[in-house]
Amino acid sequence: MSSIETGVRAPSEADAMRRALELGRRGPATGPNPRVGAVLLDPSGDVLGEGWHRGAGTAHAEVAALTDAAERGADVRGATAVVTLEPCNHTGRTGPCSEALIAAGVGRVVVSVPDPNPVAAGGAERLRAAGVDVETGLLADEGRALLGAWLPSVERGRPFVTLKLATSLDGRIAAADGSSRWITSDVSRRHAHDLRSEVDAIVVGTGTALVDDPSLTARNAAGELHGHQPLRVVVGHRDVPDGARLRGPGGELVQARTHDPAEVLALLAEREVRHVLVEGGPTLAAAFLRAGLVDEVHAYVAPVLLGSGPSAMGDLGVATIGGAVRLTTRSVLPLGPDVFVVATVDPHSPTEEH
Amino acid sequence: MSSIETGVRAPSEADAMRRALELGRRGPATGPNPRVGAVLLDPSGDVLGEGWHRGAGTAHAEVAALTDAAERGADVRGATAVVTLEPCNHTGRTGPCSEALIAAGVGRVVVSVPDPNPVAAGGAERLRAAGVDVETGLLADEGRALLGAWLPSVERGRPFVTLKLATSLDGRIAAADGSSRWITSDVSRRHAHDLRSEVDAIVVGTGTALVDDPSLTARNAAGELHGHQPLRVVVGHRDVPDGARLRGPGGELVQARTHDPAEVLALLAEREVRHVLVEGGPTLAAAFLRAGLVDEVHAYVAPVLLGSGPSAMGDLGVATIGGAVRLTTRSVLPLGPDVFVVATVDPHSPTEEH
Repeated sequence: MSSIETGVRAPSEADAMRRALELGRRGPATGPNPRVGAVLLDPSGDVLGEGWHRGAGTAHAEVAALTDAAERGADVRGATAVVTLEPCNHTGRTGPCSEALIAAGVGRVVVSVPDPNPVAAGGAERLRAAGVDVETGLLADEGRALLGAWLPSVERGRPFVTLKLATSLDGRIAAADGSSRWITSDVSRRHAHDLRSEVDAIVVGTGTALVDDPSLTARNAAGELHGHQPLRVVVGHRDVPDGARLRGPGGELVQARTHDPAEVLALLAEREVRHVLVEGGPTLAAAFLRAGLVDEVHAYVAPVLLGSGPSAMGDLGVATIGGAVRLTTRSVLPLGPDVFVVATVDPHSPTEEH
Repeated sequence: MSSIETGVRAPSEADAMRRALELGRRGPATGPNPRVGAVLLDPSGDVLGEGWHRGAGTAHAEVAALTDAAERGADVRGATAVVTLEPCNHTGRTGPCSEALIAAGVGRVVVSVPDPNPVAAGGAERLRAAGVDVETGLLADEGRALLGAWLPSVERGRPFVTLKLATSLDGRIAAADGSSRWITSDVSRRHAHDLRSEVDAIVVGTGTALVDDPSLTARNAAGELHGHQPLRVVVGHRDVPDGARLRGPGGELVQARTHDPAEVLALLAEREVRHVLVEGGPTLAAAFLRAGLVDEVHAYVAPVLLGSGPSAMGDLGVATIGGAVRLTTRSVLPLGPDVFVVATVDPHSPTEEH
């Protein structure tokens, strides 16, 4: 059925890419694999099949779309595949998508974001070698947004690191006696819990683990555990005691017996962690910053003044103002009485030595 | 000329009040007297005269409007006076406005904000006793906004105090070696200079005066001095040296040889100061907060991390989180890369002893 016969305007490839992005968002934000969506169009622009990736071990989006088309009885020979990420050329848990598209007789592939993964890339090249027309870069900003932390994580060869700070207006995280419940508002704490449900791992130092006895779970407003629980990673040599909340319901507890942030990330990369949330305390935060291993800062600033008590940030080795760690503000959001600031760390910022 | 003859709808008293508020804003934001506007309406709602207060020693708004009407040759007997602040009943630098309105034969007075000044209040009562119809509270929020710091200053019997903080994201005001130029952006600094031009006095401690050698002037983007320069007040016992910038072009230099914030404000109240900006350092900021003498905090927070160096806030005597000084956020404004937060101090906040 062509679009001329029905009188309905054929969806453009950009419309199909928007649909593919929408499908991709149905996939999980966490886990080792990227969120990807795919739409198969016949030459007149009608949709033959749709698919998205449901997470590691399941079919890739392109294969899911081919399966959908087969189930609809559609003929995909000469079809155009519109895909949010360059088809892989790699046999992992599933076979290479480039080969599946070639075998199905697809004639053209439109891609949003090229695959940065050195292991899986080369799909476009393989397709072109088989005579398939390939175009990349359609709605690339939206495509990168769909990939979230996965993209920089693969580009940098390590998990993407978000550093969370929750401070008073004068930069403190607790009163003089160590009490800190609560500086930020419940609106901010719910917001932070939502982010926990979108990362693969939460990292704290042993100091925080022992003093605060946090559970490091992702909970909803009713206090119930989210379906996805991130790994709970404690950095340092001291043991987490038996009765600790970290050993209660929640994600797997991992002890990283080192003080080197690079080693922590290497250990988590081996476990296919893509997005790490560093939650504290000040010493660990400073260690990650000094190592140049913070990509993004999430700062919750509460309208509270303390005048004493521990500061949010440990020693960064900054002697003079020229050596300050300068961030780039990405967004400012009032959250109840608090302010939520997202800022990124310039990869060339002199965070290691000043 | 009545509105019926011209076919133009007579302005309502609310319209006239909006006009009076607009006129009031032409007056100076600084100085001992409030900004006030007045409009005289004939019974059909046409404007007979307009006036506003141009600053201490000049005619009050009501008298200016009566003069304007006289110059236009208008008959104000039976007219309605629409005034943003209750007419005074006090002979100061000028005579009482209530008597002037009665003498002119005004039949009705519509007021936005009642006069909180115990010395000058009583105008409405005096008018009613003379048979004038008086109504108060029209557009009262807008009326209060026009009065700015003047209103709480008169209500509290002392200058209104704004505490300015300019900090890194981790609450520091300088690096370990004391260098601080610049933590906040030029956008924030220009914003802060604009506020300086709207206050009567800037207050710093001798520590800040001696270490930073600030000029404490209000300058525009080109670096030129604003027309209004606030008093420059240094709190403490040490002398400001001869070559200091504080002795250069700018407002009058005042040394308050005390460490008691209440004494500083009493001294400034004697000089008819209504709005004080406390700019630093941390010790002075904490002293004002502990004395319960901060009304509002202006915090400029920059996306910078220092990890060491002096904190924005000195010891507040807060031992545990329950004693924290909790503010109420009034506005959050991104300013270039920085965030500008305005928050007020609850008068009942336990800032003195915890």
